[in-house]
Amino acid sequence: MTIPAGIVAKEPEWLFEPAPCSNVVTTSRARFARNVDGQQFAPHAPPSVLEEVHDEILEALGRNKFVRPFFLLELTEVTASERAFLKERRLISKEMERGGASRAVYVAPELKSSILINEEDHLRFQCLENGLQLPQVMAALEQLDDEVGEVVPYAYHDRYGYLTACPTNLGTGLRASVMMHLPGLSIRNEIQSNLQPLPQHGLTVRGFHGENSENSGDYFQISNEVSLGKSKEQIVEELAEIVTLLMEKELEARSLLHRESRLGIQDAIWRAYGILTHARRIDTNEAMRLLSRLRLGIDEGYVKELSHETLNLLAMEVQPAHLVFRHGADAETSENRDQARAELIRQRLLEAGTK
Amino acid sequence: MTIPAGIVAKEPEWLFEPAPCSNVVTTSRARFARNVDGQQFAPHAPPSVLEEVHDEILEALGRNKFVRPFFLLELTEVTASERAFLKERRLISKEMERGGASRAVYVAPELKSSILINEEDHLRFQCLENGLQLPQVMAALEQLDDEVGEVVPYAYHDRYGYLTACPTNLGTGLRASVMMHLPGLSIRNEIQSNLQPLPQHGLTVRGFHGENSENSGDYFQISNEVSLGKSKEQIVEELAEIVTLLMEKELEARSLLHRESRLGIQDAIWRAYGILTHARRIDTNEAMRLLSRLRLGIDEGYVKELSHETLNLLAMEVQPAHLVFRHGADAETSENRDQARAELIRQRLLEAGTK
Repeated sequence: MTIPAGIVAKEPEWLFEPAPCSNVVTTSRARFARNVDGQQFAPHAPPSVLEEVHDEILEALGRNKFVRPFFLLELTEVTASERAFLKERRLISKEMERGGASRAVYVAPELKSSILINEEDHLRFQCLENGLQLPQVMAALEQLDDEVGEVVPYAYHDRYGYLTACPTNLGTGLRASVMMHLPGLSIRNEIQSNLQPLPQHGLTVRGFHGENSENSGDYFQISNEVSLGKSKEQIVEELAEIVTLLMEKELEARSLLHRESRLGIQDAIWRAYGILTHARRIDTNEAMRLLSRLRLGIDEGYVKELSHETLNLLAMEVQPAHLVFRHGADAETSENRDQARAELIRQRLLEAGTK
Repeated sequence: MTIPAGIVAKEPEWLFEPAPCSNVVTTSRARFARNVDGQQFAPHAPPSVLEEVHDEILEALGRNKFVRPFFLLELTEVTASERAFLKERRLISKEMERGGASRAVYVAPELKSSILINEEDHLRFQCLENGLQLPQVMAALEQLDDEVGEVVPYAYHDRYGYLTACPTNLGTGLRASVMMHLPGLSIRNEIQSNLQPLPQHGLTVRGFHGENSENSGDYFQISNEVSLGKSKEQIVEELAEIVTLLMEKELEARSLLHRESRLGIQDAIWRAYGILTHARRIDTNEAMRLLSRLRLGIDEGYVKELSHETLNLLAMEVQPAHLVFRHGADAETSENRDQARAELIRQRLLEAGTK
């Protein structure tokens, strides 16, 4: 078994849809953590329990009409680089990328929802949307939760809510997050001062690739830290409030940059464009950093020939596993991938420029 | 008095002429140092003597048909930025750029020869040519020397030859030099090992802007150190020999680069092109460094839409005084010049690219 063409060959179309606040927020995401009632939590469960949980869930979901069109992938049957590809598509987590027995994932046909089986929790549902669309991802997530909840009995405590392997997920089991693009604050060295207070508001900041990842290209993922003691609505509302505030700060920073160093910003944006359209090899980090500048160029009206869609797609396609699977780059050497990455970027930007 | 249009508005056409070995040698240059017999050397002479020397030479040259079409400029009558302009054109030396009473310069109409009055010596003749053309610059220099020698009595000693203010110029009074472009050796970190032995052969290495200047854009000026105890022919021959050797080393380095890191070289060249055609501000040093990469790209056949002529002209035009005089850049701030420089480069490269 390899990943079906419906996942690999298809572009994630939701990334191209026009989205609210996409000049600052690139994606919104939410997930629920759920566990099967009466079964040991996955991190401490012996293989036999994991297998039992896996079989029970698959059997139950087989009876559900909503989940039927989803692609089902057994992680033991996909290769490490295929798992990396799924991770780059944000369909599985870093934890799931490691693979492992009795782990599986259901991927929705439109590639924006997935169900992870035997990750840290027995079940994790996740939904993605373009731009700032927290109510939309929450609605999609609730539907998934309801559908699966009809056929799988969840571990639930009247006082604590949904029970989870890690106490930070207890209660609602909800983690809602938005990916923010903050080049204005970054150039003005105001990231620290703006993001440092977030933990006091129960929020966590991560880099582009989620937990433990470095900030790459001025992308910052903001999410709720705990899910206990608040309603889902409250969690999402508080996140949205801070995100709105950060958006304002970012736009303020950009307008200050225009007033105070317009030439410097234009220079940085056009140099990024010049390098991206001419380099013969480029690594992922540099590509992300320069694409970030280009995105600022689009948002600020300097780069008129490009769109968010082109950049959204590129930010995904320049990742190593995408280069291997979609563009035939030799996976063996990073030199080959750097060359394939440079070629892909040149081609996409020049195509977009001549449209 | 300002610099005549024949100098400022005219492009130095000799820079555009096809020239031998121009893939490694950008220009050849030679100068003679001469002094007026019976007069004190300039560095220690009181103002009255300098004035006397100045008047004597001008009076004599006024009677010479060969020098008649030359532009005569009194340094007291040109501004500091006009002197900087003449220096960038290599028509006067760094020493003359300082200005000073009783100093003057004659500039040949084709802008490749000049006669400097009351520099370190009473008279300095200098001639320039494109590429490796030492015999040609020597012939032009001899002619100038002969013509002036007919009307001005030179200080000459039967045993030591021409007498000069500094003993390193004693004898022939000749300094011959070539400007070499050595990106191959530079990228391979072989500049040191190849240039360090030169002083043992009586040669000196300098940067793009001559004495005490930093190496900028992998340009190295190689010239004879002393001019005593050897004939002019011997000096030129020995210089030509070493230059030929260095040319071979440079071409060897380039071909090794192609074999060992072809992609890296192409990447460096095209990134330079990408930045130069997109930057909105750029300082002289970065411009020189990137133009140097582009020159390598032309020489190695990667950049087909550009020529040495375009780059020769640009390397001159990106200098600060040229930006002010020929492109109206506000001389007050380096920010304005950086912007004007970026605009000029973009325009020139894009024009050349669409031809």
